[in-house]
Amino acid sequence: MTLEAIRYRPGSLQILNQLLLPQESVFDEIRSVQDGYEAIKSMKVRGAPAIAIVGCLSLAVELQAGGGGDDLVSFIRDSLSHLTSARPTAVNMGRAARELMEFTENESMDKATDQLRESVIGWIEEMLERDVNDNRKIGNYGAQHILSGVPRDSVTILTHCNTGSLATAGYGTALGVVRSLHALGRLKRVYCTETRPYNQGARLTAYEAVAEGFPATLITDSMAALTMRERGITAVVVGADRVVANGDTANKVGTYQLAIAAKHHGIPFYVAAPSTSCDLSLESGRDIVIEERPPEELTSINGVPIAAPGIEVWNPAFDVTPHQLITGGIITELGVFLPSELQAALTGRLTAL
Amino acid sequence: MTLEAIRYRPGSLQILNQLLLPQESVFDEIRSVQDGYEAIKSMKVRGAPAIAIVGCLSLAVELQAGGGGDDLVSFIRDSLSHLTSARPTAVNMGRAARELMEFTENESMDKATDQLRESVIGWIEEMLERDVNDNRKIGNYGAQHILSGVPRDSVTILTHCNTGSLATAGYGTALGVVRSLHALGRLKRVYCTETRPYNQGARLTAYEAVAEGFPATLITDSMAALTMRERGITAVVVGADRVVANGDTANKVGTYQLAIAAKHHGIPFYVAAPSTSCDLSLESGRDIVIEERPPEELTSINGVPIAAPGIEVWNPAFDVTPHQLITGGIITELGVFLPSELQAALTGRLTAL
Repeated sequence: MTLEAIRYRPGSLQILNQLLLPQESVFDEIRSVQDGYEAIKSMKVRGAPAIAIVGCLSLAVELQAGGGGDDLVSFIRDSLSHLTSARPTAVNMGRAARELMEFTENESMDKATDQLRESVIGWIEEMLERDVNDNRKIGNYGAQHILSGVPRDSVTILTHCNTGSLATAGYGTALGVVRSLHALGRLKRVYCTETRPYNQGARLTAYEAVAEGFPATLITDSMAALTMRERGITAVVVGADRVVANGDTANKVGTYQLAIAAKHHGIPFYVAAPSTSCDLSLESGRDIVIEERPPEELTSINGVPIAAPGIEVWNPAFDVTPHQLITGGIITELGVFLPSELQAALTGRLTAL
Repeated sequence: MTLEAIRYRPGSLQILNQLLLPQESVFDEIRSVQDGYEAIKSMKVRGAPAIAIVGCLSLAVELQAGGGGDDLVSFIRDSLSHLTSARPTAVNMGRAARELMEFTENESMDKATDQLRESVIGWIEEMLERDVNDNRKIGNYGAQHILSGVPRDSVTILTHCNTGSLATAGYGTALGVVRSLHALGRLKRVYCTETRPYNQGARLTAYEAVAEGFPATLITDSMAALTMRERGITAVVVGADRVVANGDTANKVGTYQLAIAAKHHGIPFYVAAPSTSCDLSLESGRDIVIEERPPEELTSINGVPIAAPGIEVWNPAFDVTPHQLITGGIITELGVFLPSELQAALTGRLTAL
């Protein structure tokens, strides 16, 4: 089974409240745009792709219930603007809002209110379906690529952060590759780093692994190199916040270090990301600005202090892995590409084998 | 000033309870070998040199109070065997136990019980004094070696775990090098990894740095490679639980990964360890048995769960860094040596320059 963190049927939306994970699995009903806004703002849902889909689906359920009345275009515009303001740094919501608004304005030219309502709901439902399908493709392409090197054996994967059903519209990216390997009966084990300082690996990836019955082992970030040496890691697979034109990849801090350790051990290192996470407008990773987050993320957990009072802290949220270290490839819904092939592949000049 | 974590006067021993740091600075009274065993086992005291000195001092105070009665040799033998079993990977306790037992057996040939009691206590008190002096030498040799490469500049050090006054008889090993650099006015900054899962860096090294006024920054273990790339690290200096004949070094888990990242960035990697932490009886690191600790160290902090229930955990306490990655050298109280020189240096066939 696939953990369903976003439960949508026409007119009904429930989301797994991530603030209560991993101790409690509670689904919250989202009945309106305001409910969606609050779920995003309070981080009941997180992960840029998941934020975008929950925001848009909250609009779909309010539209289904008759929301917006006769002035539908204004209602949709105001709703999308409100939803985007909940977590302004999550780029996917902003992109979805722009695309949906453009679609709405075009449709409004020649459609009556009820028809417009139906077609906007349809657009959002298609977005959900497309995102999940893209992730399934990423999972399958990645699994096949990894297995092509080991024709008969089961494989052992090391992954970082959370890139599963809890971070995406469903299925997941890097964890989607793990999911596909498990579905094929070829996953021996997945090692998850706890992913300090926000512990997405320990809280979320471990939760998904337990929920779905993956053979999984939690390690600290500091144990990754030892795990590579001692535990027969077949491949390292991570997600991406942004992949730029030359293949340099910004992802959760610690990714760079994993890539160095993988290279040292001769283990292929893969980045799994939908083409929507690729940003060909930037030439290299040097152009990516890295967000620094508050020191409290390192110095306390759940409000309990864990570090010496008064110590200075550096807390970069992401790091950039140079393309030279992405030795396995970049796994997209279009296929698996070497960093040097990415640009051509995404602009249609190269087809996956 | 130098933080005093072990307070010994003849007949009295108090140790700073590291389980309560950094929130509370509480000294626990150690009145017996069993108190010493429990303090080591529960990690109120940790760090191989500190374990050895607290273990031996706990015997000294019990002897001072008349412990062992008339069958002193058996009592000392049983006590040392018990103390050694508390944390078997820490080689220093085992070595101290063997040396003290040999001394005891020799002395027992021609000494009455009361004289024997006094001379064993004296041996232990000399061990305390010698350990602190050796650490001062390590600090000075290490600082000079690092500074020899940068004649005028201040230096930036990255260190792991806690190897300061809280881990040794006093002054520290790797953190002793930092202490010496600071005393010379040549320390620009020290970066301390938090050192998951037990957070010795965040709790203890940060505590010492704040207490002594070192310019210091706390990072997660996952940020070390990024710090090397972005923050101008001059050298990485770590401690050792055990250095074997070819220079392979067992130390806190994560050390191996730091050494790989240092090599990748061309940054010299040093191990600071007294000769008592060197075990020439083992030829290579393959012979070192690595202690695995309970999963709860990863899955909860101060009793609060931080990971998904039901997840499997691998929790090796140490890893082995191959000598090829120890590019700066091994800093001992006899001088700084390449791994290939260590055996000759420790057996008197090589003198430090």
